[in-house]
Parts: sequence; structure tokens; C-alpha cells
Amino acid sequence: MTVYQATASAPVNIACIKYWGKRDTKLILPTNSSLSVTLDQDHLRSTTTSRADPSFQQDRLWLNGTEDEIKEGGRLATCIREMKALRKQLEDKDSSLPKISDYHVHISSRNNFPTAAGLASSASGFAALVASLAALYQLPTSRSDLSRIARQGSGSACRSLFGGFVAWQKGERADGSDSLAVEVAPREHWPDIHALICVVNDEKKGTSSTSGMQRTVETSPLLQHRIKHVVPERMAAISKAILARDFDTFARITMQDSNQFHAVALDTEPPIFYMNDVSRAIIALIVEYNRVAVEKGGKLKAAYTYDAGPNAVIYAPKENIKEIVELIVKYFPQAENFKDPFGLFGAAGVQGKVVEGFNEAVAKPFSVGAVKGLIHTRVGDGPRTLGPEEALLGPEGLPK
Amino acid sequence: MTVYQATASAPVNIACIKYWGKRDTKLILPTNSSLSVTLDQDHLRSTTTSRADPSFQQDRLWLNGTEDEIKEGGRLATCIREMKALRKQLEDKDSSLPKISDYHVHISSRNNFPTAAGLASSASGFAALVASLAALYQLPTSRSDLSRIARQGSGSACRSLFGGFVAWQKGERADGSDSLAVEVAPREHWPDIHALICVVNDEKKGTSSTSGMQRTVETSPLLQHRIKHVVPERMAAISKAILARDFDTFARITMQDSNQFHAVALDTEPPIFYMNDVSRAIIALIVEYNRVAVEKGGKLKAAYTYDAGPNAVIYAPKENIKEIVELIVKYFPQAENFKDPFGLFGAAGVQGKVVEGFNEAVAKPFSVGAVKGLIHTRVGDGPRTLGPEEALLGPEGLPK
Repeated sequence: MTVYQATASAPVNIACIKYWGKRDTKLILPTNSSLSVTLDQDHLRSTTTSRADPSFQQDRLWLNGTEDEIKEGGRLATCIREMKALRKQLEDKDSSLPKISDYHVHISSRNNFPTAAGLASSASGFAALVASLAALYQLPTSRSDLSRIARQGSGSACRSLFGGFVAWQKGERADGSDSLAVEVAPREHWPDIHALICVVNDEKKGTSSTSGMQRTVETSPLLQHRIKHVVPERMAAISKAILARDFDTFARITMQDSNQFHAVALDTEPPIFYMNDVSRAIIALIVEYNRVAVEKGGKLKAAYTYDAGPNAVIYAPKENIKEIVELIVKYFPQAENFKDPFGLFGAAGVQGKVVEGFNEAVAKPFSVGAVKGLIHTRVGDGPRTLGPEEALLGPEGLPK
Repeated sequence: MTVYQATASAPVNIACIKYWGKRDTKLILPTNSSLSVTLDQDHLRSTTTSRADPSFQQDRLWLNGTEDEIKEGGRLATCIREMKALRKQLEDKDSSLPKISDYHVHISSRNNFPTAAGLASSASGFAALVASLAALYQLPTSRSDLSRIARQGSGSACRSLFGGFVAWQKGERADGSDSLAVEVAPREHWPDIHALICVVNDEKKGTSSTSGMQRTVETSPLLQHRIKHVVPERMAAISKAILARDFDTFARITMQDSNQFHAVALDTEPPIFYMNDVSRAIIALIVEYNRVAVEKGGKLKAAYTYDAGPNAVIYAPKENIKEIVELIVKYFPQAENFKDPFGLFGAAGVQGKVVEGFNEAVAKPFSVGAVKGLIHTRVGDGPRTLGPEEALLGPEGLPK
């Protein structure tokens, strides 16, 4: 008996131009275009195995080993239905193909990073789901076309269908057919872009991005100006900076847009805060780190960006990451040793310190645990199809 | 020998529609109109005595007993020069008047609240300076005309020339002659408006408002939208709400505008943060307090507002202040007993508690000292001319 099964992994992406606000909440059509860097799956990824089998009684899905309900009309159901429809089109055209689009599917998905890290797993998760179903169904569909389906699972998931530097074009059409991801540049174009994720302790769960962004759409007078006048310019300028490998411009726009996203969240009624005093202190450190560099006649050396939570993601050319880790550790002592995937530090490990000329008074030192962990990664590739040895479903079609 | 001396006091004001940005930094002409509530001088005030005497060798000024330099071309010098010029006009018209405009002046000023409280004293200070000189020079000048001079000392000082509810009209002219304060309504129109100031501990001195606001003007794309499209509407709507004693609308606009001011500060490069985690927690408490009231079929019961610092000012009708003090004390235990100028609490003092239906999880309790103190006050009157027994200068013309 043939087993119809495929496994794929997909990366996390962190936006430089932020997605905040939907013009259609059902189809997940955004009010503005956005742009992200795809992070390396060697460090952060979702892996998903999908199997179609005539013996399955219904579509089922397990996330990190726990079954999740696939709600009728919900986002998971939409993605699965759309992928089956694409398979059905193929089968209708080519009668030699097995008619597996009629079978129910079992899907098992795992993230290799803890949910507690506060990293959005919905982007990598829905991208891996779509990628594994595309492999299962052997679809010839382009990644941009697949991104349209992933988008309906979680908006920013569409950007995880590509590696490198990715734009989500908001599109104009009411049916969402032109709201999809495109590659601005592959990772190989600018592999020097590294990222340091600072996982910030959060005492209180903030507003969910799904409900938060619609409150902003409904109540923020400033959001409309951002959408119409600010984002289009920034999308063009940062795309150009990426193509020119101009880190100075890339960093400036990334920080501006992170600030503006949090500004419109604050302009919401009632106001939404995602950054806390730790997040603010990390901004102060990066601002001062850049100030020193510019004062010495250089350019910006790092860019912070914050999603809908207190974690900082710091983008920088690889050569600056060592200094940045030392800087963060100086103010945020770590309980655990720094995992050093790129071998920046010897056996002695990280010693907290600041660069010459740095004004240490820009932030106060915090106690252990304020920043719970540091993850060093870099720009990465798009979804990967994996071999059967990586499968997350056992012979019975249940999670291993 | 005649002693030419006068003493005046002036109030603090806290804006509901925020002033942030100058179109002329020398004349202190704002990019938008603003509106404030004048607080009661019985609780918070600056008092200033001015004396003119032929024996004085130069203009001198003492603030809280310490001499302050009057810099050539500086803000203090400008205000003193303009006031002398008004006196000179009178003397030129009426030769029977003593020619005291030629004399140097000694000025002594005191605030009855500690500078450490983090309350802006420049508004009440410059208003008291101008009011005391107006009394010294026996000027028939209107308060709006005096407000033009106080404005050149510190922008928001112009609003402290009136009691009650005060608008600072931004004006259009390049010379600033139409940029002045006007009374929207006197305190007697709506004496029920009380205020609770929560003095928040600040570990780090933030960006000064003078430099911060110009950075916003230069770098925030959102500020332009605020200036052109948002503030004019809000000025009209809140003025109408004040005239109608409509607290619900007054509160909503006050909170919206506080949020938006901090949003444009965050949209600045590098970003400016004035609120900290304590400020955010107080917002969460007031939002929840209002939510409970609205859910019970009522209207908004309180409005928070934050200036360029972490302190909260909570406006509310008098009847709600008791509940609000109890709420704040529940989350922010106080080292000292609540000063209870309106006798809301008996000898037992304040017991921290929340209203029925309040979701206590919206904020975590803080430790003693996070909110350093609470000041209960209310809408107040404009500058007062005081008797000689209140004078701050001794017989020699030096601070007592």
C-alpha cells in the first residue's frame, strides 16, 4: 500500500516594515504592505508532516504533540481546503494521478523553539503546513501562489514561503488574489545580515495582535496617515537599500518602522503597549551604540525591531554581533551560557562590556532574568522539503 | 522712600490637548493649539515677589532661595524686558507716574511643591513672574496680553494666566501676536472637576521637553497629520464638552490626546519614551475602572493624562476620587498617609480596594515607592495678587 506523506520545514520571519491592520479580516488582507527578513531554519523552524490516507476518518492536526481542533470555517480548515482544491485541479487534468485529494489528512507539526520564548510561531507554522501539503500533493504551484494560501492561515505566514528578504504586497483586489509574498532578494544576496533575538521576560500577556490591530484600524487617527503616506515610501526605500546592501539605510528604516508601529498601537483606544521597560532599555543601548559609531565617523551598526511583544530582534552585520552580545550581557546578565552557533566567543564565554566612548548611563543594569535568553541567528532560506527520516507521523499516522 | 514691590502667585496647569512642537523656537510659537485645566493654587503654586529699586545694580532672580543667572537674550531676560517695555509705555503716556521702568528688579520665586515631584514648575513659575511684574508696574494689560509674554518664558506658562479651562490658540502670525491664552470657561463653570496626581518614581531623567519636541517636529511623519487634522477637531470637541459639562466626552478626548502625544514622541528618531511600566499600569487600571462603569450602563468615570514624564494626572468628577484613590493605593502601596484635603476618608485613612466587577489581573501590584506620592487637587483660579505679608523679599531686597 502506498503511503502518501511528506515533511517540510519553514522559517520564522521578522518584519522590518510592520504589518498592522487588516482591510479584510476573513481573507486576511492587510491595510499596508510589509517586508521581512527570513531567519535561518538551522536555528528556528517549524516542521510539519502531512499524510493523506483513505482510512482516516477526518482531518486532524497535532501541534507539538497535542491535538488541535480544526474548526469548521477556521483558518486551519481554510488552508487545508485550499490545498486540497489545488490537488483536485491536478487530478481533474491528469487522470493517471492518484485521487488523494478526497482523503482526509493527518498533520503533525513541531516548533524547535519553546512557545514560552514569545516568538510568533504562527508564521513558520502555517508556512510549514502549506509547504508540507504542497509536497504531499506534488503541486507545481509557485511559492507566491502558495503564499496566498498561507496568508489565510496567518497573515505574516505568507512571508515565510521565501528565504532572504521578502515583501508582502498588500494587493488591491477584493478577493485577495494579488495579496501575496514576493522575494526582494535571496539570502545569498546579503548573507552578512545576522540577528540577535533578546527574549524579554513578560509578566503579563499583552493584547493579541489579531484583536489589537483591528482596534487600531477602528480608532487610531494616525494609522491612516501611516498606511497612505509613510509605508509606501518606506517599502520602496528599504527594498532599494537591500538591493544595494546599504545597512545604514536598512537599519534606519527598520528602527523608524518599529517605532511607528508601536506609536500607532499607542494611538489606539484603549492604548496598546507591547514594549516594557526592558524593551525600552535595549532601544536606549542600541541608540547609544549607533551614536558612538556615527560620532567616530562611521555608519549605523545595528537596528532594533519589536513585534507585538517585548522581545527585541537586533539586526546587524555579522562583524558587529560580538560587540552587541557583550553590550546586552553587560546590562542583562544571563543565567545560562550564551549558545554560540557561530563561534564568536572562545571557551571563556561572553564577558559583558561596552565599546569605547559608550555612555553607560543611558540605561541601568537589570537583574538576571530580565532578558531570559539570547538567540543568535542570521538570514535564512525558504521552506525545505525533508526526507522520510524527519517525519513526525508514525506508521499509524499518529504523532511519533 | 517708596518701596515698589508686588507679590503674586500662579497655578500649575495640566493639558488635555497637548502642546508638542514649536514653529518658532525663539518666540515659542507652537505647531498646534492646546487646552488645559488650571489646578488649584491652594495646593500647588508658584509665588513670586518683584521689586524695582534705583539702588539695584542689575536684574537678579532667586528660585527657591538660590540665585539663577538671567542670561542675556534668554527667556527670563525676554519676559523682564517685555514687562518693563509695557511699563515704559504707561510712563510715556502719563508723566505723573514714577519712572520705575528704568530701575533694575530683584525677583524671588518659590514653588510650594518639591522639584523632585517631577511636576513642571516652569508654567506656574513664569506665570507668577509675569503676574508679579504686572502688579509691580500696575499694568492695565489684559490677561491674554500678559499670556503672550509668559509664553516667551515657557510655552505652557501662557495657560497659567487663567483659571478654569484654558485654550492656547496657536495663532498664525509670524510675530506671535495672536499666539495667546484665552479662557474657555472659568472654574466656577465646572468646579466638580478634581485631579489626582500620581507622582511616579523615575530612575532616569528623560529627554527634556524643549529638545524632545523639536526632534519630533524634525523627524516624526505622524506629527504633521496630528497637527493638521487631529488637533483642530479635538480642540473644538473638547471645548464644547467643557461648556456642556460633558465629562464622558472630556475624558475620552483627554485620554486620546495623551496617548497620541506619547505616540508621536515614540515616532521620533531616536524614539522618546516618557511613560514607564508604572505609568502603563496606571493606564490599565483607569481603562478597567472605566470599562466596569460603562458595562454597568454608565459613562466614563476618570481620565488619565501624562505630560513629558511618567507622572499620571487623573481627572475625575469629585464623587469618583475616593474610589480612584482606593484603586491606586491597592496596586501602589504608599509609604506615607494620604493627605486628604477634601476629607474623603475618616481617621482610618485609605484602604486599598477595587470596585465590584473589576478584573484585578489587569495589572500586578507594585511595591512601596513605585508611586511616591498622591496629590488630590481640583480645578482652580488664575494668578492672585498677594498682600505684603506674603512677600518673599526682605527689606534689603534680598530673599527672606
